[in-house]
Amino acid sequence: PGMAPNAGITREITEMNTAVITFSKSIHEGRVRGAWGTFENALVIGIGGSALGPQLVARAMARPGKEQLKMYFLDNTDPDGIDLLLAELKGKLGRTLTVVISKSGGTKETRNGMVEVKRAYEQADLKFEQHAVAVTGLGSELDKVATNGGWIRRFPMWDWVGGRTSLFSAVGLLPANLQGVNTELFIEGSAASDRATRSKDVRRNPAAMLALMWFLAGNGKGSKDMVVLPYKDRLELFSKYLQQLVMESLGKERDRSGKVVNQGLAVYGNKGSTDQHAYVQQLREGLDNFFVTFVTVLRAREADDFQVEPGISSGDYLNGFYLGTREALSENGRQSISISIDVLDESRLGTLIALFERAVGFYATLINVNAYHQPGVEAGKKAAARVIELQGRIRSLLFEKRPQALKISEIATSLNCGEEPVFLVCEHLAASQIATVERIDGQFEFEMQYRAK
Amino acid sequence: PGMAPNAGITREITEMNTAVITFSKSIHEGRVRGAWGTFENALVIGIGGSALGPQLVARAMARPGKEQLKMYFLDNTDPDGIDLLLAELKGKLGRTLTVVISKSGGTKETRNGMVEVKRAYEQADLKFEQHAVAVTGLGSELDKVATNGGWIRRFPMWDWVGGRTSLFSAVGLLPANLQGVNTELFIEGSAASDRATRSKDVRRNPAAMLALMWFLAGNGKGSKDMVVLPYKDRLELFSKYLQQLVMESLGKERDRSGKVVNQGLAVYGNKGSTDQHAYVQQLREGLDNFFVTFVTVLRAREADDFQVEPGISSGDYLNGFYLGTREALSENGRQSISISIDVLDESRLGTLIALFERAVGFYATLINVNAYHQPGVEAGKKAAARVIELQGRIRSLLFEKRPQALKISEIATSLNCGEEPVFLVCEHLAASQIATVERIDGQFEFEMQYRAK
Repeated sequence: PGMAPNAGITREITEMNTAVITFSKSIHEGRVRGAWGTFENALVIGIGGSALGPQLVARAMARPGKEQLKMYFLDNTDPDGIDLLLAELKGKLGRTLTVVISKSGGTKETRNGMVEVKRAYEQADLKFEQHAVAVTGLGSELDKVATNGGWIRRFPMWDWVGGRTSLFSAVGLLPANLQGVNTELFIEGSAASDRATRSKDVRRNPAAMLALMWFLAGNGKGSKDMVVLPYKDRLELFSKYLQQLVMESLGKERDRSGKVVNQGLAVYGNKGSTDQHAYVQQLREGLDNFFVTFVTVLRAREADDFQVEPGISSGDYLNGFYLGTREALSENGRQSISISIDVLDESRLGTLIALFERAVGFYATLINVNAYHQPGVEAGKKAAARVIELQGRIRSLLFEKRPQALKISEIATSLNCGEEPVFLVCEHLAASQIATVERIDGQFEFEMQYRAK
Repeated sequence: PGMAPNAGITREITEMNTAVITFSKSIHEGRVRGAWGTFENALVIGIGGSALGPQLVARAMARPGKEQLKMYFLDNTDPDGIDLLLAELKGKLGRTLTVVISKSGGTKETRNGMVEVKRAYEQADLKFEQHAVAVTGLGSELDKVATNGGWIRRFPMWDWVGGRTSLFSAVGLLPANLQGVNTELFIEGSAASDRATRSKDVRRNPAAMLALMWFLAGNGKGSKDMVVLPYKDRLELFSKYLQQLVMESLGKERDRSGKVVNQGLAVYGNKGSTDQHAYVQQLREGLDNFFVTFVTVLRAREADDFQVEPGISSGDYLNGFYLGTREALSENGRQSISISIDVLDESRLGTLIALFERAVGFYATLINVNAYHQPGVEAGKKAAARVIELQGRIRSLLFEKRPQALKISEIATSLNCGEEPVFLVCEHLAASQIATVERIDGQFEFEMQYRAK
C-alpha cells in the first residue's frame, strides 16, 4: 500500500488486508460457523493464478495437525478428480468453508467446480451459500452469484492485479490467513524484496542479477530451460508456481514493437535430492539445454539434533547432495544459480516469491516483451467453446436421424466440418452417460458409426 | 514370466508375484498385524525408481476411504519433510506397515528415512521391526538389516531389473497390492503392450510410432522438450514418472560406439486443463521448443449424469479444453501427440506404462544409446560423499583451534581446498544444532569467521 499510485488504492489495499485478517479470525474463533459447527476445513476452488499461489503457500507453511483450517484445493474440471476430492471431504462439508476464486468470474473450470461442490453440499442437506466465500472482481458473474445467493462474504479482486501476480491480494492472503499463516510477515518479506530490487546498483539488486543470469544462460532467447530444484520438500510446488509466473509472462509471440520474436523460458523441476534420482543423469551427461536454479534452506528442521550416523544428520546429507550435484554439474560445464535462505518462514517465502516476480519484470525489459498480458490464452478457450458447440450440433443431428446410424464422413459433410474433430467428439459422446449416443463398430478400423440411443 | 529367458527366472517371477499377493491378503485380513491391531496405513520409503512408480499407481488407482491401506510416501532426506510426514502419521504408527525399498540397499536418502522412521516408532513405544518389510537385492545392506532385525518379511529385487523399470517387480506390485489394486489386471495390461509393441509392422506398433514421433519432433537430438498433459487428475504424476523413465534412459553422454553425443529428451508437465492456465500462453505463442503428449480418458467419471449446464457436463468441458488447446497449438504449428484410452483402470494403466517403456527402448535404438545404465548418477553421489567428508574435516579443525575463530581463507588454506565449498559448508554447519559451530559476522561481506562453540 505504501507504494500505491494514489490514496484511493492505498486505502483499498489496506481495507482488503484488514478485512481478510478480521474475517479469518471470526472463522477461527467460531463466530462465523458452518451448519455443523466451527469450520475445520477450507476448500479453495480456483485455477491458474487463483490456485498455484495459494497451493504453494499452503504447502510451504504446512503444520499438519496444528493448522487453523485444513486446506483442500479444486483446480480443474475433471469430474473424476472432483469425485476424488469430495470423497476426501465426505462427512466434513458442514465444517468446510468453500472459497471460490475467479478474477473474471467467468472461468469455466472454476464455475463447474463451484456447481459440483454446491451439489455435494445439497446432497449432504447443507446450504452451500452458508459455507461460501467469493474472491472476485466487483460486478463479475461470480460476484452476482455470490450477492444474489447471500454468500457469507465477498472479497475484492482488482482489475490492476494480474492472476499470476495475485498472491499478495485477497487471492493469496485469504486462503493463507484461513490456514493460520501470518500474512503480515509474508507481506513484509515481499516488501523487503521490493526495496532490494529497486537498487540501481545491479550487483546489489538480486532480481536484476537473476534476470541477467537468465539472459546469459539462454542467450536472451530462452534457449535453455530453467530447472528449479529446491532442496526442501515444502518448496516442491515452487517450480509449478514459477512455470506460470515465468512462462505466461515471458512466452510471447511479439515484442513491444510488434516484431515476431516467439520468446519464452521453459521451467520445470520438483525437488532435491529426489530429482537427482530421476533425471540428473541427463542433466550431467546428456543434452546441455538447461540451467539449474538451486534453492536451499540452511535451517534443516525445528529440532535439529538427531544423528543418522555419528555426528551426521539427514540434513547434512541433504546439503551434501545439493553441493555434490552442483559440483558434478559444474565439472561438466552445466550452469547453475544458487539461492540460499536461512530459514523458511512467512517472511522469507514472501521475499523469495517477490524476488522472482521482479526478476521476471526485469527480464521482460531486457527482451522487450510485455510481461503482463497473455493474448495467447484466449485462442484455446475460444476453440474449446467451438468444440462444446460442435458436440451439441453432432448430438442434435444424431437425434434428428434416430434410429439411423451415421458414419464420421456423413456427419462431417452434414455439418460442414473436418472428420477428425467429428471422430474425437463422437468418441467422447459415446463414452458419456448424458449424451445417450452409442458407437457401432464396423468390420474395419474407422468404419464405426454413431447413433442416438 | 512367460517371456523369461529361462525356467529359473520364470519361477522367481511367479513366486514373487504369488508371495506379494498372499502377503498383502494376510495384511488386509489382519492375520499379520501391527502392535495396535490390523494395519490401516502403509508407508513406502524409497526414492527414484523405488518411489515414482508406486506413487503414480497409488494416485492413479486412488479410492479415498475405500482403500485397503492408506498410502504414504517418504522420498527424500529432508529432515523437515520427514517431520511433516511423521506429523501426518501421528497416533497411527502402530497400525502402519513400513515398506523400505532399495535395490542396492545403500541409497542414503532411503537409509536415512528408515533410521528416522525407526526412531518415530520407538518414540511411540513400538518395535519398528514388527512393522517393517523390505524390498531389496539378496545380500544387500538393507537385506542384512532386515534379516538381523527380524523384520516381518523380505521381498526380492533382482539385479536384472533397473530401478526405473521396476514397477512390475515387487517394488511396484507390493505397494499396489497393499493399497488394494488388482495387480494381476495391471500385469495383464502391460503384457498387452508387450504383444502390441513386438509387431514388425511399424504402423501397427504403437511404441515404434511413439519413438519415431519423438525422433521427428526433436530431430533425433531431443531438440524439443516433451510436455506431458494428461487430462485426468489421477494421472498428474505421469509426467514425473516419465521424467525418470525417459530422461535417465536417454540422457547419455556417449552412444554405444563411444562417440560423445550428449543425448536426451527433457520431459515436464502436470495436467490439463489446469496447465492451460499456467503456461499454454508460452506453448501457443512463445518459444517453439516442445511437443505436447496429450493423454485423455474417454470415460469421465463413475456416475456420469450430472449437468453443469443443460445437457453439458464437467467432462464435456474437460474434453472441450483438450480439443480446443490441441487445435490452438496446431494452428500455430506446434506439434502434439494424442493418446486416448477408454477408461482408466488397472489394465489400461499397465498398458500405458509399458507402452512408454517400450517406446524408450525403441528410441534408444534409433539414437544408438544404451537406455539401461546411468553412469552419470555416480558423480553426484561421490561428490556428496566428499562434501560430508569435508564437513567433518572443517568441524575437526574448528574444534582443534577452539576458541579461535577462523576466516574462510584460513580454513581453505589449512585444508587445502577451495574457498567456495568451505564457505557453503561453514554456513550449513553454523545453522546446524548438532555441529555447534557459530558464525561471527565481520564489518564487510565475506569477512565472516567461524568457530566451534
